[in-house]
Amino acid sequence: MPQYTPPLRDMQFVLHEVFKVSDALNLLPRYAEMDADTLNAVLEAGGRFAAQVIFPLNRSGDEEGCTLDKTTHEVTPPSGFKAAYAQYVQGGWPALSCAPEYGGQGLPFVVNQCFYEMLNSANQAWAMYPGLSHGAYQALQVHGTEAQKKLYLPKLVSGRWTGTMCLSEAHCGTDLGLLRTRAVPCGDPQSGAYRLTGSKIFISAGEHNMAANIVHLVLARLPGAPPGSHGISLFAVPKFNVNEDGSLGARNAIFCTGLERKMGIHGNATCQIALDGAFGTLVGAPHKGLAAMFVMMNAARLGVGCQSLGLTEVAFQNALTYAKERLQMRSLSGIKAKDQPADPIIFHPDVRRMLLTAKAYAEGGRALALYCALLLDQEIDHPDETVRQDAADLVALLTPIVKAFLTDNGHIATNACLQVLGGHGYIRESGMEQFARDNRINMIYEGTNAIQALDLLGRKVLGSHGAALQKFGQLIAALVDEEGVNEKMAEFIDPLAALAAQVTKLTFELGVRALQNPDEIGAAAADYLRVAGHLALGYFWARMAQVALREITAGNADPFYPAKVQTARFYFARLFPETASLMRTAHSGSRPLMDTDAALA
Amino acid sequence: MPQYTPPLRDMQFVLHEVFKVSDALNLLPRYAEMDADTLNAVLEAGGRFAAQVIFPLNRSGDEEGCTLDKTTHEVTPPSGFKAAYAQYVQGGWPALSCAPEYGGQGLPFVVNQCFYEMLNSANQAWAMYPGLSHGAYQALQVHGTEAQKKLYLPKLVSGRWTGTMCLSEAHCGTDLGLLRTRAVPCGDPQSGAYRLTGSKIFISAGEHNMAANIVHLVLARLPGAPPGSHGISLFAVPKFNVNEDGSLGARNAIFCTGLERKMGIHGNATCQIALDGAFGTLVGAPHKGLAAMFVMMNAARLGVGCQSLGLTEVAFQNALTYAKERLQMRSLSGIKAKDQPADPIIFHPDVRRMLLTAKAYAEGGRALALYCALLLDQEIDHPDETVRQDAADLVALLTPIVKAFLTDNGHIATNACLQVLGGHGYIRESGMEQFARDNRINMIYEGTNAIQALDLLGRKVLGSHGAALQKFGQLIAALVDEEGVNEKMAEFIDPLAALAAQVTKLTFELGVRALQNPDEIGAAAADYLRVAGHLALGYFWARMAQVALREITAGNADPFYPAKVQTARFYFARLFPETASLMRTAHSGSRPLMDTDAALA
Repeated sequence: MPQYTPPLRDMQFVLHEVFKVSDALNLLPRYAEMDADTLNAVLEAGGRFAAQVIFPLNRSGDEEGCTLDKTTHEVTPPSGFKAAYAQYVQGGWPALSCAPEYGGQGLPFVVNQCFYEMLNSANQAWAMYPGLSHGAYQALQVHGTEAQKKLYLPKLVSGRWTGTMCLSEAHCGTDLGLLRTRAVPCGDPQSGAYRLTGSKIFISAGEHNMAANIVHLVLARLPGAPPGSHGISLFAVPKFNVNEDGSLGARNAIFCTGLERKMGIHGNATCQIALDGAFGTLVGAPHKGLAAMFVMMNAARLGVGCQSLGLTEVAFQNALTYAKERLQMRSLSGIKAKDQPADPIIFHPDVRRMLLTAKAYAEGGRALALYCALLLDQEIDHPDETVRQDAADLVALLTPIVKAFLTDNGHIATNACLQVLGGHGYIRESGMEQFARDNRINMIYEGTNAIQALDLLGRKVLGSHGAALQKFGQLIAALVDEEGVNEKMAEFIDPLAALAAQVTKLTFELGVRALQNPDEIGAAAADYLRVAGHLALGYFWARMAQVALREITAGNADPFYPAKVQTARFYFARLFPETASLMRTAHSGSRPLMDTDAALA
Repeated sequence: MPQYTPPLRDMQFVLHEVFKVSDALNLLPRYAEMDADTLNAVLEAGGRFAAQVIFPLNRSGDEEGCTLDKTTHEVTPPSGFKAAYAQYVQGGWPALSCAPEYGGQGLPFVVNQCFYEMLNSANQAWAMYPGLSHGAYQALQVHGTEAQKKLYLPKLVSGRWTGTMCLSEAHCGTDLGLLRTRAVPCGDPQSGAYRLTGSKIFISAGEHNMAANIVHLVLARLPGAPPGSHGISLFAVPKFNVNEDGSLGARNAIFCTGLERKMGIHGNATCQIALDGAFGTLVGAPHKGLAAMFVMMNAARLGVGCQSLGLTEVAFQNALTYAKERLQMRSLSGIKAKDQPADPIIFHPDVRRMLLTAKAYAEGGRALALYCALLLDQEIDHPDETVRQDAADLVALLTPIVKAFLTDNGHIATNACLQVLGGHGYIRESGMEQFARDNRINMIYEGTNAIQALDLLGRKVLGSHGAALQKFGQLIAALVDEEGVNEKMAEFIDPLAALAAQVTKLTFELGVRALQNPDEIGAAAADYLRVAGHLALGYFWARMAQVALREITAGNADPFYPAKVQTARFYFARLFPETASLMRTAHSGSRPLMDTDAALA
């Protein structure tokens, strides 16, 4: 059976030694007193919850799945999920990074990011139930009316109720402009009350018995709405209607009509949802639903990257344990375990390659994700508007990278770790193939990775005429300036600086080409995103190596630091060079893809 | 539900137009009269069997799986498997490429290769039952005694009995030298009769009710055998003992004690097997079992590559159909389907990238696999010993490439095709995720892809001091000579010639380094194998483009030919450049992997 140990030491390294988060947070009035000990204590408790309560339900949840009673439309999640959720609520975990005015603990996003990484390592399918609630909380906080906030937010913050995002329909997912669910005003025109009719699919955590109520955030069309994505509105549609005093009323006409049978995340209820004149209230302005939904979506995209980060970490831990124990063949360079009939497979170079791939993507991805979380804290609470704007621009740039690059890396890493176990990795009992199956959805939902790539190259980079990219480039330039003469850092700084120059050139070229033919963006976007991902990961790996080398130079004997330097070296030697191919294919233009009508006839 | 159409036109193109197999086969005395019409007729009938009988059982077999009766030790495969197997036997399919002296049809391996590709597209889990029989047939044909051949071969050829390979034990798979199953002589010492005791795992098609008897080929140790892989012997152990007249005797003490629960290939019974003093007869010389087993293993490795080829093809077909039908978003370069609310997703460049990736790997892999099959025919039957030896050397070189490169490509392709369907690809009903799950085992069994890489670089390339590689290099050099001045071929020939030169240089460098430190082989092997794979695929894509361009120049208006040229262009523009990164990482040496003790502590 698989094991999981929360990577607290590495989180603390990134938080305190690389990003010095206490100092950074102390500049925000709300966190003026926040200290490292407080943060660490929360992470320790969160890690215990993830490892001891949620992780033991991961394999059993995968095997058991969810069941739907077609008469009552009630869904029962796997055994233990409900009790674990009750513990989660009792421990106050839903409130972690929520606003104190709604009962939240008001802790920074960096804490929530670490906590969710651990929940995702422990049990992605379970973590999606509270994860979607957090998205609903954010959307209502930004776009909800005072009445909606009063009615829903304290319940979402406490975890007594959960939330969903109801976007996709059978004929549309990526292209929400095609959606057909209708909303008709009812009662007093000023009341914001509507009746919704239609059907939705792929609704994660869409129905379950873990909470007293579920707040569905539903996209639908108002009468006379313009066609396409500019005619979509957002509604809050509760499972049980809510009386003004917050007590539950009658069952609303929003029902789970089917559960999808999926490759993975079996423990999460992926629902087909029917709305049959369901009561709902408008969230935000009419026809502006997509903008309101994007509040949830952007948070969800960072959250999906974090799901793959969690799976990469837990897959690595289990493959490492196996590689140390499994005896098979002798090392090519001579016997390593003389008293054993064979050497542990960790002595075989290719096994190390697979393990270090997962390790470098886990630790590098953690730094990138925590950096984004810190930017979110700054975007919201920093007193200086320029800092807030810079943080917002960087988060916008990095969000598609976190979503697509980390989930693709999760695919690479979980499959590499499965491979370390050989045939045993293919057997369900080992748990390794579940990590790979669960991860596979992360490349798809909340906008496929192709959509992320278009968002990055088309909207964020070219859409800002390179300004957003330049802001990240300035961080790299500052590091290059700082360490450019340090010989020990040259192996990290030189390739990073070279790639930054290449990316600038590539971006300019693609911008010029796109003016002639917009398909050039679509043709280059996926490769461009992976190049940008390595630029970001290369930057964070160089910063981590910098800190580790300084500690070593200062005489710190903790083996954590040479481990960090070794992993940075591996990353630059074996993963970063992927950019050599990506630059070529990103340059290759749209014709090899688009002049292919006969080939795809 | 997924669909499958046998790719007969493409098979015929490769067989007749690229390789001119009739001419090549006519040089072999046994096939002096073989003509294209005969080959095509067999493939058409084989395609019908695969598409109409086997493919409809693929999804249901995945859902239903196999069941074991723990009292009787009998295994029931999914519904329909047994009846389909009866049809397979009745149609004479098991005998296709078997020797006429044992009842075989004596058709060339190229036919069997095409037939098995189609069976694998249709239902890999089902195809493994007869597939393993064929391996047992080959091992007994080469290493069996006359009595064994007489007793077993006609039954295996007719398909009335099936066969297995019993190699792995719980503590050893890659390292068979560690195995513990024991064989003790019994009865007359000259009889070759033994009693075997031990337990095996991961035995594909290890027990079922589809055939009257099962011939297990079992690796075990004789008393006093030397330790390690030089002390292993091979035994034929029937499920039911066989009387001298071929009739069935008592149930032998070899039982299925458990079925593995796996990521995929649910329709195949992956058995734990207990031998409790089971009767068996020695195959080949004592302690030489591994050599005998390698007859099966080499065939099986080509067969595993062919499994992924089949999955790549069927995944491509279904993703293509979906991409033409699914309407989502408008093309970046302007509306394509004016009368529809959105454009078919095939107009989006990244969807084309994913589709063409699968297509280029399917068609390129088909050419490579058929080339190997033709070499096998020549190796066995060509009258000229030099031709036989060259064919044998090339097959030995290409076998690890077919196994590892085609299965890795199958992983890339089936996942790309799943991604084309977005969320619908993650739902079991679409069948796409099954292709990805089924393919995942192919990278592991019959020697993990890391073992293939060591076999290629360490044994086949450096072990022959580059001679085997040079033989393949001569084929490339001949093509470069032939087409070096043809401007239309330059886009294919130039990168191919450049890579060939780089590979020669890389091989020499790795050879020198390996003398200092054998870990350099293990560190470079996986990347080296993918480089060699692209060298091979690039060669076959250039040859296919050559034939297609000639047809177009000659005025042939069949759209098949521009389709082939377009796919070749895509391959060289978007897949072949992977070698730019692989060359760098293959060069990067063992230190970034091996100097990492702290990182993997």
